[in-house]
This record gives sequence, structure tokens and C-alpha cells, in this order.
Amino acid sequence: MAKLWQKEPNREIERFTVGDDFILDRNLLKYDCLGSIAHAKMLCKIGILTKEEMDSLVCELNKIIKMKDNFAIKQSDEDCHTAIENYLTEKLGNMGKKIHTGRSRNDQILTAIRLYEKNGLKEIKLAVLNLIKTLACITEKHHDTAIPGYTHMQKAMPSTIAMLFNAYSESLKDDAAFLDDIYAIIDQSPLGSAAGYGINLYLDREMCSSLLGFKKVQYTTYVQNSRGKFEFLVLSKMSADLLLFSTAEFGYFSLPEKLTTGSSIMPQKKNPDVLELIRAKSKLVAGYLFQADLIQKDLISGYNRDLQLIKEPLFRSFAVTEECLKITDLVLNNLIINKEKCKAACTEDIYKTDKALDLVKKGFAFRDAYKQIKEQPE
Amino acid sequence: MAKLWQKEPNREIERFTVGDDFILDRNLLKYDCLGSIAHAKMLCKIGILTKEEMDSLVCELNKIIKMKDNFAIKQSDEDCHTAIENYLTEKLGNMGKKIHTGRSRNDQILTAIRLYEKNGLKEIKLAVLNLIKTLACITEKHHDTAIPGYTHMQKAMPSTIAMLFNAYSESLKDDAAFLDDIYAIIDQSPLGSAAGYGINLYLDREMCSSLLGFKKVQYTTYVQNSRGKFEFLVLSKMSADLLLFSTAEFGYFSLPEKLTTGSSIMPQKKNPDVLELIRAKSKLVAGYLFQADLIQKDLISGYNRDLQLIKEPLFRSFAVTEECLKITDLVLNNLIINKEKCKAACTEDIYKTDKALDLVKKGFAFRDAYKQIKEQPE
Amino acid sequence: MAKLWQKEPNREIERFTVGDDFILDRNLLKYDCLGSIAHAKMLCKIGILTKEEMDSLVCELNKIIKMKDNFAIKQSDEDCHTAIENYLTEKLGNMGKKIHTGRSRNDQILTAIRLYEKNGLKEIKLAVLNLIKTLACITEKHHDTAIPGYTHMQKAMPSTIAMLFNAYSESLKDDAAFLDDIYAIIDQSPLGSAAGYGINLYLDREMCSSLLGFKKVQYTTYVQNSRGKFEFLVLSKMSADLLLFSTAEFGYFSLPEKLTTGSSIMPQKKNPDVLELIRAKSKLVAGYLFQADLIQKDLISGYNRDLQLIKEPLFRSFAVTEECLKITDLVLNNLIINKEKCKAACTEDIYKTDKALDLVKKGFAFRDAYKQIKEQPE
Amino acid sequence: MAKLWQKEPNREIERFTVGDDFILDRNLLKYDCLGSIAHAKMLCKIGILTKEEMDSLVCELNKIIKMKDNFAIKQSDEDCHTAIENYLTEKLGNMGKKIHTGRSRNDQILTAIRLYEKNGLKEIKLAVLNLIKTLACITEKHHDTAIPGYTHMQKAMPSTIAMLFNAYSESLKDDAAFLDDIYAIIDQSPLGSAAGYGINLYLDREMCSSLLGFKKVQYTTYVQNSRGKFEFLVLSKMSADLLLFSTAEFGYFSLPEKLTTGSSIMPQKKNPDVLELIRAKSKLVAGYLFQADLIQKDLISGYNRDLQLIKEPLFRSFAVTEECLKITDLVLNNLIINKEKCKAACTEDIYKTDKALDLVKKGFAFRDAYKQIKEQPE
Repeated sequence: MAKLWQKEPNREIERFTVGDDFILDRNLLKYDCLGSIAHAKMLCKIGILTKEEMDSLVCELNKIIKMKDNFAIKQSDEDCHTAIENYLTEKLGNMGKKIHTGRSRNDQILTAIRLYEKNGLKEIKLAVLNLIKTLACITEKHHDTAIPGYTHMQKAMPSTIAMLFNAYSESLKDDAAFLDDIYAIIDQSPLGSAAGYGINLYLDREMCSSLLGFKKVQYTTYVQNSRGKFEFLVLSKMSADLLLFSTAEFGYFSLPEKLTTGSSIMPQKKNPDVLELIRAKSKLVAGYLFQADLIQKDLISGYNRDLQLIKEPLFRSFAVTEECLKITDLVLNNLIINKEKCKAACTEDIYKTDKALDLVKKGFAFRDAYKQIKEQPE
Repeated sequence: MAKLWQKEPNREIERFTVGDDFILDRNLLKYDCLGSIAHAKMLCKIGILTKEEMDSLVCELNKIIKMKDNFAIKQSDEDCHTAIENYLTEKLGNMGKKIHTGRSRNDQILTAIRLYEKNGLKEIKLAVLNLIKTLACITEKHHDTAIPGYTHMQKAMPSTIAMLFNAYSESLKDDAAFLDDIYAIIDQSPLGSAAGYGINLYLDREMCSSLLGFKKVQYTTYVQNSRGKFEFLVLSKMSADLLLFSTAEFGYFSLPEKLTTGSSIMPQKKNPDVLELIRAKSKLVAGYLFQADLIQKDLISGYNRDLQLIKEPLFRSFAVTEECLKITDLVLNNLIINKEKCKAACTEDIYKTDKALDLVKKGFAFRDAYKQIKEQPE
Repeated sequence: MAKLWQKEPNREIERFTVGDDFILDRNLLKYDCLGSIAHAKMLCKIGILTKEEMDSLVCELNKIIKMKDNFAIKQSDEDCHTAIENYLTEKLGNMGKKIHTGRSRNDQILTAIRLYEKNGLKEIKLAVLNLIKTLACITEKHHDTAIPGYTHMQKAMPSTIAMLFNAYSESLKDDAAFLDDIYAIIDQSPLGSAAGYGINLYLDREMCSSLLGFKKVQYTTYVQNSRGKFEFLVLSKMSADLLLFSTAEFGYFSLPEKLTTGSSIMPQKKNPDVLELIRAKSKLVAGYLFQADLIQKDLISGYNRDLQLIKEPLFRSFAVTEECLKITDLVLNNLIINKEKCKAACTEDIYKTDKALDLVKKGFAFRDAYKQIKEQPE
Repeated sequence: MAKLWQKEPNREIERFTVGDDFILDRNLLKYDCLGSIAHAKMLCKIGILTKEEMDSLVCELNKIIKMKDNFAIKQSDEDCHTAIENYLTEKLGNMGKKIHTGRSRNDQILTAIRLYEKNGLKEIKLAVLNLIKTLACITEKHHDTAIPGYTHMQKAMPSTIAMLFNAYSESLKDDAAFLDDIYAIIDQSPLGSAAGYGINLYLDREMCSSLLGFKKVQYTTYVQNSRGKFEFLVLSKMSADLLLFSTAEFGYFSLPEKLTTGSSIMPQKKNPDVLELIRAKSKLVAGYLFQADLIQKDLISGYNRDLQLIKEPLFRSFAVTEECLKITDLVLNNLIINKEKCKAACTEDIYKTDKALDLVKKGFAFRDAYKQIKEQPE
């Protein structure tokens, strides 16, 4: 079925401009229906739709939500918005056309994406809180398992497994707070902004906003894309630590065989591929953020088609972030901590600062104590 | 005077590792003294320093703050921390050494940087609020100056100068909110975390934290570097708009000659260099953020010297961001808006959506109205 | 069928580590078979395989190449390498196992990717040369169509359509040269490097290298990822130019309706989405390059599983780059150049430099001529 | 003295647009003079300057080159070009003005930068070749010092110090080749392209080009910015390796005390700060490249002032790259290799692949040999 603006576009250009939208939009189907339901109710209130029209539109839209992946979005539909409108027009004729009154696809898609993001942020926050719980168990169990603390990748001072894992969960707590901040900033309803220049028709934007559970009516997209980034700052650091501390040379940690991968040529290998991939996936998310960021750069005000290409990096960042949070949780729940290796690693030298401080307690200036201890033979 | 740990380092290596710290640290001098004052008061409370020692240390540190750029940080000092300690030791002998008790340069510098950042965020927020005021004046003055709204860089619908500038200030309001969020996350006192592994000595970290005006005691650095980025999303977009709308072909805006630059070969040129540079500086800040980001990536837990190199991108982002906010304000206060050009640009075609909506009000389904208007001859 | 190293891995971890490899590897199927054919012939020469074994292996591998997408790569296979080995073992029993002698998947996949890249670079170069031809037609047809040349986005000096499009093709010529440089650097055979540490078995790496058409035997991956980037420097600049010069306000160019897209709300719109998407896709490629780059950063020597994640950005960059080169060519072949608009745009002021130079020819110092002309009334 | 186009610009705007150019341009002083000398000789040939005028101009320009840092570039001069022209006008009056005939600052600065880059690439290549020599000494000395080869950060197969350092020098050899490729692409003379639209005056661009030692006349800037990046791929990897292998837990390498740094709180520390900084500086260069890249993105054709801001990242990348190559060389010349630690690390398990291959030589299929060895008790 043809696109809304009835025209015979060049096939190659069409394929190029449509891209993978008809696939990517599966992520938005539910949210676009929810947006349309709110819009329909509002159009009814302002007298564009009759009660009956609104009811049957809402009913069909709910059917689509239930159909889930059984609702087809064909490449010829271009995207979920046209697919839905074509479906409604087929079922309800004119009404299916009426629902688009006072709405541009620009605000329609922004609404769907915003709802998608709000849901995604909620799920990521759950995964973060869950990971914090797991870390708490480890720190409790190993509150007194001593390991060296490292600076410059060299043994520095006495520390514990608990201190190491506590640092991760402290970071994650700030991440959770940051997720709330981002949520608050994107919690604004774009529905009714039309092509970005309003519309010569009275729309009750407040009504749509509250029906959709937005905190307020407004337009803003530019913060949405930092999601995922901060969670990974801790995930990839944790992977880097675990990879190092799992080498035969350190040996503080190891993974059970069922979490490792073998080599096709080396019989003895048990590789921590999962940690390497988590470390690497943080780079993918950085790249998605970078794409979204670049695409927005220097566009003049008003909608530019460039923004369509932000969809994929956006969906992927959410998916990869949530996946890695869950896999990390699985890894931690199976992590083997080798107490003896940890203990053995706590060699004499890491207690030198303490020795200097003992002298301080005896009245030495720290710098003098420092020198005296430094000059002592190993 | 030699570095704290008395050693004869290789000269080239020393120059390489010190880098520009002795220059960059001018930004931190005041904040490092404030940190040391708090630390001294705390050491006095826990009995490491006598009241007299503390008083004279605080007195000398306040002198340094007053000296400002007259206080020398020599390359041989490596950084402001050593310069200050050497100065104190010279003036007060042993006491100058004692103040370093229970403190590592790792937590000392983090404290100074955190205080620097908190101050920087405050100043940037002021500049943002100021720019919002300026935008308000323009929108008020031009609430009914019509211009076309653009999508896909093509005329789309009727709009106004007010709507255009309102979008900027809406973004800036969210930026201001976001600055508060970042401030809240970094508002934690690192003083007392020593090398990151605590210290075998009772320190009153709460006391230092409240003396320094931190909200709580903790350790976190990873969010600090997104500052600057969001403000520029609007600044560079505004520059892109103004550059386009100031071309002879659009002509909506122009800059007074005193804000433009000429050409060395073309007598007629009046170039909007200032807007081009604001547009470009957003890329510099993106680059600084990128550097800070990369440097932190995949470092194992614990201090790594790599982090020293975050100082410069950090200081520069703050400086460039604040400068561009102020210059943009200056440009807006001098911007010439050519009402006639704006009016002339509002051609027939941009009212076609309104015409379609008139039909809708007569009962047409929007899609049908759309087609009828579309088929009307220009 | 189970993975090579016989083990019962955790299902979630397996799904996570396998990722989309079983899909992505469709790009490598042909090249992995070619690599195996060369390896089999070499194993035969050094006496690990008999002539008969080699013949039947080569025969089956050629069958797989012919099967193309009919050859299944199941998720349980993990990747194309295992899928192929399982297939061979099924068909030929022991021989299917023997072919893996003296080869690690590390060098096996590197070989396949290298062959894929060499082919991709060739195809991109063809598209570039093709685009240069198209540009030549335009420049020839419009060698005297005058338009203003712009600096600082302001009219600067007299120029022509030919000069504008010539700049693009000059860039593309350098791109073509650069593609050759990259090709030369990656034209090295990794086959036989095993896990990166050679192998305790005499392998004739020279033989494999020449069978596969590599220039020499060696190991290098780090340049491969800049492909795509340079071509886009011109494509996105060209899009930016065409978008600007196609605005109603400039009007030098326009696209035939069949290459434009309409609006769902604005009846009059004919949007150049295709140009916006080309502009934006350059950002995607920048992001893919960025991902590949980050993933490699700071990995210690030797294979790290992180590298698996470079596959997708690599394949995508090649695909997007080639696609955009072809679409741009299509756009240029349909571009409408509005001669009158171009002529009308060549206003008096852009000839002021020429006037100054006329005075120079009369003996004035350029600076004085410049001032005299500048002071002349418009 | 006033800028060329005689005007009273707003002071703040002037400071903002000039930025640090008057400082940065110290890097270009010599090259801009060389460009002007070639331009003067050409102007003489085409009859714009008399032999006497040309001679005195060339003489003064050579004086400036000799003056080096004693030649002042004042902020009021804006950049080195104006400073030089003001100086010449002061000394030679009218002639000083005449030399600017047929030249825009756009092509003038591009010429100076291009000459700067060509020189910089030469020096970097020298440093690369030098480092390759140093690596050769190490590999020769340690051709049989065994260490484990690592994959997935786990011991994998037997390797040697020679193999490890050979990989670095192989990479550096490709870097050297790549430097030549970049050199070849930028080896084109922009002098005479004026503002990018040529000039209505006969200029002998060939003459300037050959006087300046360019291979050909043309316009291209877009490749220049990848310099530095590839060298760092090996430098930062080497640092990552050395940092890991220098931990107490690995202990293969160590740095002499004079190349390490101490801790202000931990008496025992000897930190490899130099390696951490080299690792981190690779991120700075990535950031500079990123800035240069972003700044160029989506600018329309023709000069845009944005490009001015590429100067600093360009100069810095060259400086940082050369510095790190030299420091790395110094580190390698002082690196201590602990043979015993290396030997001790070569544990039984890394020989399992060899054992499997022994079975292969006895006729086993590799997969069967693999399984048999795998099942052997440790």
C-alpha cells in the first residue's frame, strides 16, 4: 500500500530512505499505539472525533498492541506509523484517516521514542539495583578477605575484597541517581508539537501528556543519548579488574569452567571471553552514543531526516546495556574467590605506610617517618 | 628543592612526567590551600597537630591564597601540592611536613579538583541563566515577527522569531537543571580516602567534608566530565541557525560591522567569524570530553597516573564553555533582525497545512483534505 | 552439534559470547572456504594430508561456496568456522578434523576478514571512480555556469558549477589513491600465525599467501578500520552543499519529485531526505570506526576476544560506504541545475576583488586598491 | 597596528576570534616566510614586482626566519601573516603591501601549514625508524629468552621476548609506510588558490609549487589529521604490555629507579608513571584527531573560519607523537628484563598444543589428539 503522500518514488531512493525502519520500529509498535490512543481521546474531547469513532479507534489500537510481533510492518509501509494507519483505514475507513488530524509524524515518533526510553530507563535501573544487591552479598561474605590495593598497577596498601567490590557498588549507586536525573529531563510530552511549529488548531496537549504519564508538556531530546554510558564506566572497569586478577599470575579470582570458553588449538585453555566481551561492549555503546551525538551536531533547528538514524544506536544502547548488566550479575554469582592466593599476595612491603604512621604516633613528622622506613632494608 | 621522595630521577623522564602541571595547577592553587586548611583543622582535632601548629599553618595557607599568581610554582616543584608543601616547610619547618599526615596526593588533588569543578559549574550556570534572560528580551520584542519554520531545511510552516529563540531558551533551562544534577553527583568529599585504600589512622572525614562545604563524604569522579557538552548542543545549533539565516539569500539576521571580520583579499566581505568559531568550539569541547573519557577507559581500579592528563581537558572545557556562553550573549545583544526580509519569506505555500485544517473543521478527514490541497495549483 | 572443545557451557553465557556471529559470518563464508582450500593444499604439500584427502576437502569446500545462503550457519555452530568444520566432518569424517592441523581460529578468521576487506576495498574504489565520471559529465556540461563562491557562508567571489563539482572529484581522486595505500598495507597473509605465537610444525606460509593472492606473509590489522572515513568527507560535504543550495532561498539546485519525500502533514513539502540521510550516514561510519578503534585500544598483545566485536562495525562500514557512493551517483544523475537562479545570484559585490586587481594592473599596491574599492558606495 | 581591513572591531569579539593564534603561529613563522619568498619570486616573474622589490622582500623575509623567537607576533597582529606584512610594510613601505597581490590568507596559511606538516612527518618518521633500531637490539639480545604467549590474558603458548618486541617493530614498519602515504597525499601546493576560487590574474602556481618543493599543485587537507594515530596504536599497546609484565605478579620487566616515581605516602613505591602517561597520551592524540575531524564535518565548501581551530590539535598531535616516540625509546634502552622470572613463567600447560601436535605427527587427526591431551591430568 502506498505511502501517505501518494507518489511514485524512485525504488532505490525509497529503499535507501526507508532503511531498516520497518524492522527497527518493532521496538516502537506498542508505544506508538499508546500515543495514538491518547491522541484519539484528546481529539474526541475537542470534537474532532465522535465518541463512537474514538472508541473503535482505541479498540483497534489495543488489538494491535496485543498482536505484538503478529502485526506485520512491511517494507512498503516504511515504518510502524504508516503500517498502523493503513491497518486502521482498512478496518475503519475514514476514521483511520481522521486520527492523524493535528499530528505530524515528527511529534508522533518523538512521543513513541520518549515512551520507549522511559520504559528502558526503568528496566536498566532495575538491573543496576539488582547488581548492587549481588555486590552487597560478596562484600559481606568477604569483608575481611585481604588483598593488596593497587596504584599505578603496583601493590600499594592493604585492602580487602569488600573494599574492591564496594567501589563498584558506590559507582552504581551514583549511576542509579543519574538514571533518575535523565528520566526527569526526558519526562516531557512532545505530542502536539506537530512538525515542531505547533498547529493552527486547538489541541489539549496537557490531556495527552497526563494520559501518557508524562510529567509535563515540552520538547527536548538532547540528553536522551547519554544513557548506558555511565553504567559501562563501572562494568568495563570491573571487567578489566577481573581479567587482571584472574590471570594465573595474580590468581585472586577464577571462573567456573561452564562460564569459560576453550581454544580450538590449545587443549589447556579456559578463557574468560565473557569478561572480554563486556569490556568491549562498553566501546560499542560509546560508539552508539557518538553516532547519535554526531548526527545531531550542527543540524539547523526544525526536524531533519538525519535524526531517523538515531533510532538504531538508541535501541542498541538500551539492549546492550541491559544485557551486560544481567550477564555481569551472572558472572559475579559464579565468581570463585581464591582466598589463599589473596592472602599470599599481601606481602611485607604493602605495610610500610602503616609502619611510618606508627612512628608518627610516636611523634615523628610524617615526612621523617617516611624517609626512615624507606631506607630500611627490605 | 627536590621532590618529596628524595631521588635523582632521569631529567627527560621528569620533564615528561611533570608535563605542564606546574602551569595548569595555577587553576588549583586556591582550592588546594582550602583543602589543606580543612585537613589541618581536622589533624588538630584528632591530636596530630597542636592548636599553635594548626593556626600558623592556616595563616600561611591563607597568605598563599592572597598571593595568587605571585606565588611561584616552579617546574622543579612538579605541581602546586609540592610547591605549597615546600613553602610551608621553609616557613614553618617540621610543621610543614606534618600537615601531610594521613593524606595522599591522590585524595589531596581530587579534593582540589572537586572544589574547582563545583565553582566552575556555578559560574557556568550563571552564564546560562544570563543568556536565558537575553533570549527572553528577544522573544518578547519579536513575539509576532513571522518567519517560516523549516523542516528538512525547506520552508515548512508559519512560525515566529519568538518560537525560534524560545526553543533555545527551553534547551538552556534543561541544561541548567542538568548542571544541578551533575553538581549534586560530584558534591562529595574525597579528602581522607588517601591513596584510595583508606589509612590506618583515625581521620574525621565528616569534619573535612563539612568544612569544605561538601554534601557528603565519598569517592566518585566519573560524571564530572560531561559538563560543557550540553550547553554546546544549543550554542552550536544557534550558531548554525544564525549562520544560515544571515546569508544574503535568507537575510533574516545580520551582525553589525563591529562584530564581523573582513577579508584580506575581498573588499566587500563582512564575515560572521564569531558564529563560526562558536560552532567550532563546540567540537573542541566534545574533543576534551572525549579525551577525559578515553583516558579513564579500562584503567584498573586504584589510582593510575593516566588520570593526570585529564586536568587540561577539564580546565579547558570549563573555560571554553563559559567564554562561548558570554560571547553568544554579546552577539545576541547586537543581533540585527530584518523584519521585512522575514515577512517576505513567509510565502503562500507555508499556509497549506492551515488550509487543509480549515477543510478538517468543515468535516473532512485530514488525509482527504491533505490530498485536495496538495492537488491545488500553486 | 557441540563446539570444538566439547563442554557444557552455561546457555546464557553461550548466547552472549556467540552474539550475532552466526549471522554476521555469512559475509565471511566464501572467504573462509577460500582460506581453508589454501590451507588444505599446503597441508598436503607438507605431508599432513594425502592427495586424496586434499582433493575431497577442496571439493566439499567449493560446494559450500556454491551453496551460498543455502549453507546453514546455526546459532549452535557459533560461527562459520565451526559450521564448515562440522559439515566437513559429517561428509568426510576424520579428514574434516585433520584440516584444522596447524591452524588456530585466530589466524583462520583473520585470513577470511582480510580477504573480505580486500574485496570490499576493490568494490568501493570502483564506486568512487564511477562517481568521478559522473562529476566529470556535470563539470563539462556546466563549465561556464556561473555561481558565487562562498567563504564564511557569505558570497565571496565569482565561481562556476564546474569549480564546485571539480573540488569533489579532486577529493575523490585522493580518496582512490588512499584506498590503494590501505589495500597495500593490509595485503599481508596472516594464515599460519596460529594463535599469534606460531606453531611447532613446519608450515609453508609463503605457499598459502601466494595461493590466496596476498603480496606477503605478515600480521597486521590496525589500519583496516579507516576505510570509509575519507570517502565520506566528500560525500557529506557534497550533501551539505546540495542541501543548502537546494533551499528555496538559494534555489541553485532541485531534485525531481521522484527523488524527494513528502510530509504527512504539510501538503506542499518535497523534502530532500536522501541528502539528509547521506549526510547522517557519514556519522554512522565515523561511529563504526570509533567502535573498532576503541575496542582495540589498550588490549595487551595477543588475541583478545574483544576483537570479535569489530566484525559488525567493519561489515557495516563497507556496506554503508558503498551504498552511499551509489545513491549519491544516482542523485547527481538526476540533479536539476537552475541556471537562471545561479545567474541571478552573481550580484555586483562578488566582483570587487577583480576591480581591485584591475587597479593593481594599473600599478596600485594591492592594499591601496583594496581600500579604494572598499570605500566605493555599493 | 590595525588589521588589514581597517575597522574598529568590538574588543571582546576581537580577542575571541584571534584566540591564541598569535602564540600558535610561532610554529608557522618560518614556513609562512618560505611561502612568501616563493610567492615574491613568482610575482617578480609575472611582472607584478620588480627584481629590486623582490630582492629586498626576500632579504627581509630571510631576516625574519633568522630572528626566530625574537620576531614578535603581538596579539594586535592577530596572526603571523599580519605580523609579517606589518613588518615588511614598516621596512619597505609599498612593497610590503604589494606582496599580498594575488594571494588570500586562505591559501597563504594552507601553504604554511602544509610545509609545517611535511617537516613534522619527516621528523616523526625518523623517530619511528630510530625506535625500530632499538627494538632490533632487544630482539637480537633476547632471541631465545622464553616467555609465555598470552591470549585472552591467559597463558597460551611458548613464546619469546624476541617475538613480543618483533610484533611492535612490525607494526612500526607499517606505520612508517603509512607516514609515506600521508606525506604523498598532502605533498600538493595550495599556494595560488586564493580564497579557494582562484583569482582573476595570471599566477604561475607551478613555479611556486616547485620552489617550495611540492610534488604538484592542488588543494587537499582532509587526510592530514590521521597523523599520530597509528604510531600510538603500537606505543600504547607496548605500554599496556610493559605495565602488565612489570607488576610484581608477572615481574618479567622492571624499570631502573631513576625512571620511576615514588609515592608521597607509601615509602616502598616505585611507580612506572612514564608508561602510564604514554598510554594516556595516545588518548590525547585521539582527542586532537577527533577535534580536527568534527570541526571539518558538514562545513559547506569554501573556507569557513571554523578551520582556524584545527591549528592547535594539529600542532599538539605532532608534538605529543614525537615526544612519546622518543621517551619510549629512552624507556626501552633502560628496560630491565628478568630472565629468571620469564623462565619460571613458562609452566607445563603452555606446551599442551605441542604435545597434541606430536600425536598428529604420529598420524592422529588434530581434533582427536586435542581431546586426548585435554583429558590428561594436569
